[in-house]
Amino acid sequence: MFDQLGLIGCGLIGGSFALALKKAGLVKRVVGYSKSPSTTERARQLGVIDIAAPSALTAVSGADIVLIAVPVGASEAAFKAIRHGISGQTLVMDVGSTKLDVIEAARSGLQDQFAAFVPAHPIAGKEVSGVEHADATLFSGRRVIVTPVKATLRSNVQRATRVWTGIGAKVSTMTPEAHDSALAAVSHLPHLLAFAFIQSLGSHENGEQFLEFAGPGFRDFTRIAASDPAVWRDILLANRTQVSAHSQAFRRSLSEFEALMASGDGQRLEEAIAKASGSRSQWRPGSDPSSD
Amino acid sequence: MFDQLGLIGCGLIGGSFALALKKAGLVKRVVGYSKSPSTTERARQLGVIDIAAPSALTAVSGADIVLIAVPVGASEAAFKAIRHGISGQTLVMDVGSTKLDVIEAARSGLQDQFAAFVPAHPIAGKEVSGVEHADATLFSGRRVIVTPVKATLRSNVQRATRVWTGIGAKVSTMTPEAHDSALAAVSHLPHLLAFAFIQSLGSHENGEQFLEFAGPGFRDFTRIAASDPAVWRDILLANRTQVSAHSQAFRRSLSEFEALMASGDGQRLEEAIAKASGSRSQWRPGSDPSSD
Repeated sequence: MFDQLGLIGCGLIGGSFALALKKAGLVKRVVGYSKSPSTTERARQLGVIDIAAPSALTAVSGADIVLIAVPVGASEAAFKAIRHGISGQTLVMDVGSTKLDVIEAARSGLQDQFAAFVPAHPIAGKEVSGVEHADATLFSGRRVIVTPVKATLRSNVQRATRVWTGIGAKVSTMTPEAHDSALAAVSHLPHLLAFAFIQSLGSHENGEQFLEFAGPGFRDFTRIAASDPAVWRDILLANRTQVSAHSQAFRRSLSEFEALMASGDGQRLEEAIAKASGSRSQWRPGSDPSSD
Repeated sequence: MFDQLGLIGCGLIGGSFALALKKAGLVKRVVGYSKSPSTTERARQLGVIDIAAPSALTAVSGADIVLIAVPVGASEAAFKAIRHGISGQTLVMDVGSTKLDVIEAARSGLQDQFAAFVPAHPIAGKEVSGVEHADATLFSGRRVIVTPVKATLRSNVQRATRVWTGIGAKVSTMTPEAHDSALAAVSHLPHLLAFAFIQSLGSHENGEQFLEFAGPGFRDFTRIAASDPAVWRDILLANRTQVSAHSQAFRRSLSEFEALMASGDGQRLEEAIAKASGSRSQWRPGSDPSSD
């Protein structure tokens, strides 16, 4: 049980975390701050936070748990802003989809308080953003990856694990390098491909007309293309080395498929599709087998 | 109202059409044939067809409506097999996802009965196949594209429109060329990309481990990769010219995104994502606005 959550970034993820902690009875009070005062005020009106703070430092003053829930590119400024509000008793976490860059941002921003920081990435989200979509059950049954480094306080890793578990998530521990490679493969690259696909369709002279004939397959394949631009700008920039490596591998696979189509080799084309199809049919979400 | 549906291909799509016609009271009797006798027998046991025919020709003999619901590569053999069972009073349709090649197959297979054929493509499906997944409501609210050519009997186009409308679908008419280009863009290319993506993930030495961290975005993006291999082998081969053209455009878009990532130009990257995101957010399925 925590006394005060200092929430920096009252968006979909931060707001959902605040609601989940309240619902689980894990926090007495939530003090929130967003860069835009109107967002902070809306979060207060919606009951997502209890008190709207005028600055990040105010929001974390007196907090025993702090969540940084901003686009990853804004992490360093956020860590800098809260540094003097952090004590040896504070647990600080983020929710970023990339970890190596956020850890560097925390090291540089938090300085002598860096040990308080437990890097965390809840694999949960929606294609909509904003505090009005915050949802106390967003993390229920979802996986959260924590990527502590050598300097990270072990007791804070344990507290982090307890709080995520307490709101229904399943916690895994990885190195930040392994996290960034895995997420580039299964999340960041699919987003990049979906953005590029929608862009290429929009560039076609008949693109608008084509969209009239798009069905449920298109709907699901492109759902992630509607994701938040600022969030994904930061993720793609922060993890570009890994994303580019996986994109190269993807292009090689695409070329192989195209060569089979061009050669008219139906048997090998069917084998290649069958392998992909079988692999996808067998897959079940590791974090939540019941949701598929 | 038809007396007899001759169904060639008792799979998901053919079976769903038979069930839909029965439910709407549009047919008295369904005689079905599948290449595999056990499939035909299963369709009969499930009540999807009333009579299991020992050959395609038997299935269409005496039928006033015929549906060819086989992978597009098997169309020509199916048309050849039924030719002598078709009269000037028969409406013949297919359900293929490509139209130019099926029209050629019909011209060659049906010969002097080609005028009876109304090329049709219901934009509906599931990522599972087989008659056990047949569903009387599969076409409800979905779009069906008919692509008649010069030789096609106008009265049969009208009958085709009535029967699809009668089972809740919305009928559009296009040229086969426009159909094949549009479907390459919004359906065939996404399938190709999803197959290639799953293949590239599977080729990675840590691919299996990566999959444990895949979430709901991955689930939706790759759902179509689980599609039927024989069906998609035929579609990708039949429409390869159009699919390759759209794939080239996609690669150009992907390269543009990668160049923005490599240059670190956050502002232009965000603009490009915002354009794709906004475009996808605005899209609603033409056939069924309520299903998104």
